[in-house]
Amino acid sequence: MKEMSELRADPLSKTWTIIASERGKRPSDFKVAHEARDPRPGQCPFCPGNEAMTPPEVLALGRNGGGADTPGWSVRVVPNKFPALRPDSGDEPLTTGDILKHMPGIGAHEVVIESPDHEAGWGDHSQEQMEAILKAVLLRMKELRKDARFKYFQFFKNAGRVAGASLEHAHGQILVTPNVPVAVAEKLSVARDFHRENGSCVYCSVIKIEQEARERVVFESPYFIVLAPFASRFPYELLLLPLHHSHDFESLEDNREAQSDLARVFRSVMKKLDDAFDYLPYNLVLNTAPWEVGHEEYYHWHVEILPRLTIIAGFELGTGFYINPTAPELAARELK
Amino acid sequence: MKEMSELRADPLSKTWTIIASERGKRPSDFKVAHEARDPRPGQCPFCPGNEAMTPPEVLALGRNGGGADTPGWSVRVVPNKFPALRPDSGDEPLTTGDILKHMPGIGAHEVVIESPDHEAGWGDHSQEQMEAILKAVLLRMKELRKDARFKYFQFFKNAGRVAGASLEHAHGQILVTPNVPVAVAEKLSVARDFHRENGSCVYCSVIKIEQEARERVVFESPYFIVLAPFASRFPYELLLLPLHHSHDFESLEDNREAQSDLARVFRSVMKKLDDAFDYLPYNLVLNTAPWEVGHEEYYHWHVEILPRLTIIAGFELGTGFYINPTAPELAARELK
Repeated sequence: MKEMSELRADPLSKTWTIIASERGKRPSDFKVAHEARDPRPGQCPFCPGNEAMTPPEVLALGRNGGGADTPGWSVRVVPNKFPALRPDSGDEPLTTGDILKHMPGIGAHEVVIESPDHEAGWGDHSQEQMEAILKAVLLRMKELRKDARFKYFQFFKNAGRVAGASLEHAHGQILVTPNVPVAVAEKLSVARDFHRENGSCVYCSVIKIEQEARERVVFESPYFIVLAPFASRFPYELLLLPLHHSHDFESLEDNREAQSDLARVFRSVMKKLDDAFDYLPYNLVLNTAPWEVGHEEYYHWHVEILPRLTIIAGFELGTGFYINPTAPELAARELK
Repeated sequence: MKEMSELRADPLSKTWTIIASERGKRPSDFKVAHEARDPRPGQCPFCPGNEAMTPPEVLALGRNGGGADTPGWSVRVVPNKFPALRPDSGDEPLTTGDILKHMPGIGAHEVVIESPDHEAGWGDHSQEQMEAILKAVLLRMKELRKDARFKYFQFFKNAGRVAGASLEHAHGQILVTPNVPVAVAEKLSVARDFHRENGSCVYCSVIKIEQEARERVVFESPYFIVLAPFASRFPYELLLLPLHHSHDFESLEDNREAQSDLARVFRSVMKKLDDAFDYLPYNLVLNTAPWEVGHEEYYHWHVEILPRLTIIAGFELGTGFYINPTAPELAARELK
């Protein structure tokens, strides 16, 4: 029997995906050319010895003695040299009353240089290194939260040129915005409505359903679960959730055991992807509640891993629908 | 004085864009490699003589005599060989009551082969050819609307590999969905709210504001206006709107003069882009009201032209915000 395509709704957003499982693409069906390494390690602004090529660091971990902006660090955080948002963009308020609304680009835009090693990715980092990366993100989150103008914190990674990385050396980015972004507001609203109607967190409900169904679970650890989500927009998309309800990624700060577990899960999952694909461009996005109170009961922080093997084209841009040639059940089987 | 970045809200959706105008990129600042032509004209399924390589045509214009699926056509519409949605995907209704909702992939997915000429794009087509393309879209729209299961019609074009085109021969696509896509529902909701509050169409209001401001108008014709929108998500993004309020693209069917004018505007605008850029991958998306009644007063059909010179990366996917390195005022100046 010919398998037909199916439309699936993501219970955590209002996104629909067309799962075109007739195509049923396995990892080897995706041909992604590995890009030229550019710049070479010697000229790379993120390599040790080249600290002067970046703006002055705001955080360094692992340096024993030695001044700021010198080698010896294990993780280093610097302001983005070409920031999309910056703390000193002026402070006129949002113009309102007009149809065309605008406000100064206030915020923060930082780069988390993950390791002194130019070539290492999340599947290569040692346990200690991965823990240091998470610690750096948590420390920056704690610091940036103090500025009352800042409303939302996002950590994300663009790995590979087609995923938006302009430099190869493993790095993540922090962007802090002066308002709650539309896609985040949408997720909050879906979660709030679900909680009002059912008295429970929609993320917790999804975890329960997936633990029972088993067909989309890729990995489970003492503190976390990794799923191929039901309405995956991208082939081999993964969703990491804490098993215990928590709206705020920063809550991890008090729990060293969960931090270690998260580092282990990230390393293991990224290794699985590295093994399945010869070369995999991807985006990784941390979703945590905005810094305003009120989202505690219904929001649940999570991390999306979005392989960029397909192209976001006219249909996706016009409708917000995605077309995914790999059913998440197949993705979970291939990665387990 | 250093130019700061600015956050701008699109009045037609809830999208925010960071206009990073410090970067101020002109057309020559974008380096896009022209892709290899593949397949060669002789092997191209959209070239005349190769009609047997596609599913049987559903429409052909310009053929004088000769059977279906033979050369002689000027525009040819065929079902997509690998359809994302299809009319015969079964007819179980949407499963409801569950958290994980899904429905059969019912709909239509067609390819509009724009011209017998393998190399011609919208900046190259003759007036007659461009009119025939628009006529073919209108005829398919009229036909597909008859199926009561179909709710939304989208015509779009992916031009260039990074914009999602897998074949080079100029073609557009039609996708008809069995529900109203989330991005469309969002725009409808913004327009409905604006109309309720102000008693007027938000698109008509934007046209009036832009005609007075002039700094973002790229082109105006008797029936249409082309703008670089205030909160452009992409550098050199353009928005085409009919000057007279109309919610439905199909209303053009009764107005041959407006059809001709639209063909002229498209040719002229795409020629401007072809001249400004050596090679430009882009998406083009027709936005028209869903096929349910009720959107007449507040929705206004429009066409988005979205150059793909930047990459949709982790930040954009996580927040729905876009970062645009070219202010629309600069884009309008460069293209005028």
